[in-house]
Amino acid sequence: MNAIDSLHQRLAGVVGAANVRHDSGALLSYARDATPLQRGNPDLIVFPHSTDEVAAVLRIADEARVPVIPRGAGTNLSGGTVAVNGGIVLALTRMNRLLEVDEGDLVAVCQPGVRTIELEDAASAKGLLFPPDPGSHTTSTLGGNVAECSGGLRALKYGVMRDYVLWVEAVLPGGVVIRSGGRLVKDVAGYDLRRLLCGSEGTLAVMTELTLRLVPAPACSGTGMAYFAELSDAARAVSRVLSSGVLPVTLEFLDDVCIDAVEEYAQIGLNRTAGALLIFGQDGDQPTVDHDLTRIARSCEAEGARNVHIASSPEEAGELLQARRAVLPSLSRLGGLTILEDATVPRSRIAEMVDHIQAVARRHRLKIGTFGHAGDGNLHPTAVLDPADEDAVRRAELAFEEIFAKAIELHGSITGEHGVGIVKLAFLERQLGPDHVALLRRIKTAFDPHGILNPGKLGS
Amino acid sequence: MNAIDSLHQRLAGVVGAANVRHDSGALLSYARDATPLQRGNPDLIVFPHSTDEVAAVLRIADEARVPVIPRGAGTNLSGGTVAVNGGIVLALTRMNRLLEVDEGDLVAVCQPGVRTIELEDAASAKGLLFPPDPGSHTTSTLGGNVAECSGGLRALKYGVMRDYVLWVEAVLPGGVVIRSGGRLVKDVAGYDLRRLLCGSEGTLAVMTELTLRLVPAPACSGTGMAYFAELSDAARAVSRVLSSGVLPVTLEFLDDVCIDAVEEYAQIGLNRTAGALLIFGQDGDQPTVDHDLTRIARSCEAEGARNVHIASSPEEAGELLQARRAVLPSLSRLGGLTILEDATVPRSRIAEMVDHIQAVARRHRLKIGTFGHAGDGNLHPTAVLDPADEDAVRRAELAFEEIFAKAIELHGSITGEHGVGIVKLAFLERQLGPDHVALLRRIKTAFDPHGILNPGKLGS
Repeated sequence: MNAIDSLHQRLAGVVGAANVRHDSGALLSYARDATPLQRGNPDLIVFPHSTDEVAAVLRIADEARVPVIPRGAGTNLSGGTVAVNGGIVLALTRMNRLLEVDEGDLVAVCQPGVRTIELEDAASAKGLLFPPDPGSHTTSTLGGNVAECSGGLRALKYGVMRDYVLWVEAVLPGGVVIRSGGRLVKDVAGYDLRRLLCGSEGTLAVMTELTLRLVPAPACSGTGMAYFAELSDAARAVSRVLSSGVLPVTLEFLDDVCIDAVEEYAQIGLNRTAGALLIFGQDGDQPTVDHDLTRIARSCEAEGARNVHIASSPEEAGELLQARRAVLPSLSRLGGLTILEDATVPRSRIAEMVDHIQAVARRHRLKIGTFGHAGDGNLHPTAVLDPADEDAVRRAELAFEEIFAKAIELHGSITGEHGVGIVKLAFLERQLGPDHVALLRRIKTAFDPHGILNPGKLGS
Repeated sequence: MNAIDSLHQRLAGVVGAANVRHDSGALLSYARDATPLQRGNPDLIVFPHSTDEVAAVLRIADEARVPVIPRGAGTNLSGGTVAVNGGIVLALTRMNRLLEVDEGDLVAVCQPGVRTIELEDAASAKGLLFPPDPGSHTTSTLGGNVAECSGGLRALKYGVMRDYVLWVEAVLPGGVVIRSGGRLVKDVAGYDLRRLLCGSEGTLAVMTELTLRLVPAPACSGTGMAYFAELSDAARAVSRVLSSGVLPVTLEFLDDVCIDAVEEYAQIGLNRTAGALLIFGQDGDQPTVDHDLTRIARSCEAEGARNVHIASSPEEAGELLQARRAVLPSLSRLGGLTILEDATVPRSRIAEMVDHIQAVARRHRLKIGTFGHAGDGNLHPTAVLDPADEDAVRRAELAFEEIFAKAIELHGSITGEHGVGIVKLAFLERQLGPDHVALLRRIKTAFDPHGILNPGKLGS
């Protein structure tokens, strides 16, 4: 019996034979996540059902020094769940119970495999809001959201995933279970492990239960849009809005490439002559929503916006947001390969960054549309190309290298919400410096001395 | 020349002779922080002026294996800045420059020695709000606030210090400087060191520069109060308020001991027959403030509140808040020794916890008043006694041990905002368990292999 067969047998003893797979269908399905061009070949896919099972799997894997790659729905965009060194993909999708939504304590308790939208809906049914709103929310799991520290459209006002993690149960390599935090906004007993695990990309521990903070749902919301001749005008409008005393819930932008692609695809009447489109939204009580949308509209007009428009009904607001949601599918249909990237700059540098992206695209003869969260400076430059055109793929790699370098130069980040994964590991030291990366490695070792958790990623 | 003299000489070469002190006045002043009953005797007090000087001091101290205790204004309430093993107290009060307040990026950049109130005022002057609001804000420094992850009165709505730390420059033992984060709401490049340092109580690194998030200042605010016959009624009102869709900026309570003490001292017309007083506040646009205060008042009435009152002017609102602010001085004058403690429970367990505290006080024949942040379950049971009465001091120690045990039993925390320090180190393992504490020690070692930073505290 070879090593994998022996491991298979031991793991089957823990989770049941039906929950360890190594048939070619499973091995193929779990060789990739949503990241283009990245793949790895796991040896086994294991589907645990409980914390005890996760602990037993990690004990066995640690003894055998076999890699374990925790995984939710696989919507990752940085190759974070790709098994680059083989080993066990630990799929947490069976641990999908939403255990509690408590209106008094304003918390939800859930297993990591619960999908984001399930929590959103359960909270909404009780008059509550779970603000983190990653683009993949209909598919992604909360465990994955926490592991990646997902962001989304509401981060400017409501923050990101880390701002909603109150308690974590997690299993360390070797099988030790730790619990950090509580149903508490205030808790400073010990180093803040729950927030250290948030964004640790499956490299430190496997999260098995989460307590997440909820907030009362706002009574109303509203949406508007503004066209600008130049993206730099839109960027100045963003600064003007934020300096005016308004913190909008949504402040999204599309560059001209994206406007063009969306209109081509969705035909919703966008103005294709504009250089940029800003979509803004606010929530709260009706007077605040009305007042803030008017203030945002005025800031846009002061920076030369044309056709500023505020939706007069929820249906119309939905249509405006549709323009934003249609960007990725619209761009995707322009080429067989869509590389959706993720870089953040201080919001005062957005125009400079998008200018750079457009210049890089021209120089490398690439189609790159940029859209994203203008309010928090989180940009999604997205290249579309023919995957068979190897030279174009190579040019895209060079282009994104230059884009990341610019983000670092502008005191931004190579990743705002998609994670480092394998795609950006080579750039991490450029942003953080060697001493910082060495410290990350020592922290990794404090959790995972044998380096079995998601090797080849953060902390490696 | 003995070892201390030699160290003194080397440090004087770095920061200048005037900035290394070991005169008896300095040694006495820096032997204590604001924590009663705790003291330690440092060998030297060093006042660096720059990041380079901090790095040089940490290099020398690490080589010599001499403890370094970073310290701001010394308002700590858990003995966190007491030099239990001697060594160097590194007083960061000369690094007190507020470098920038940027309305476009909604950030402030400052050195660690800037006082909290200075930032509050500078932000306010530009129409911005820095929400963390520790009780010591007129004295405490921002570096200390971050190191302790300070909370305060606005945490329910706005969160605590960790929610406002965007970028940190910090020096590791040995003198290596790392920088984490940026002017970015979204940044997931690497483990989240800035939030790991938040609440690390000076045991991992010395922070030398901070970028902090600001928010637009709300246009208006309002305050109200409600008396209850029993504290359990007030606690139920808190749950009802939060379930009703309102997230108040302030939701504070006083038990009958505190009401009595405040009225005795300040004579502001409080009703001494009440079992509890709830003070609530909201900020935002005027219609939202009015609407929310009315909703909060109705929730209080539905739980049997009498005399619900909403202030009709900012002056009157100030008077209501005065009742809350007067609690600590009022209690303090009842005895020579005031032990202000800090425990958090899920907000649904507040009544149970306060009942327990009052029973413990009776059993140990102690005067303990409890007040605090009802909205986030953060309670401040405060004992007043005669410091010369050794038996009473001993009974108070036993009482707080029982109070912390109850907080743990109710899935709360031994500390919500004051830190572990030396006062609660013995209770930490009870809350977290031995495996968790062992992991904290390994994280400590990843930062500080020779254990020179604030030894005898977190991570020891």
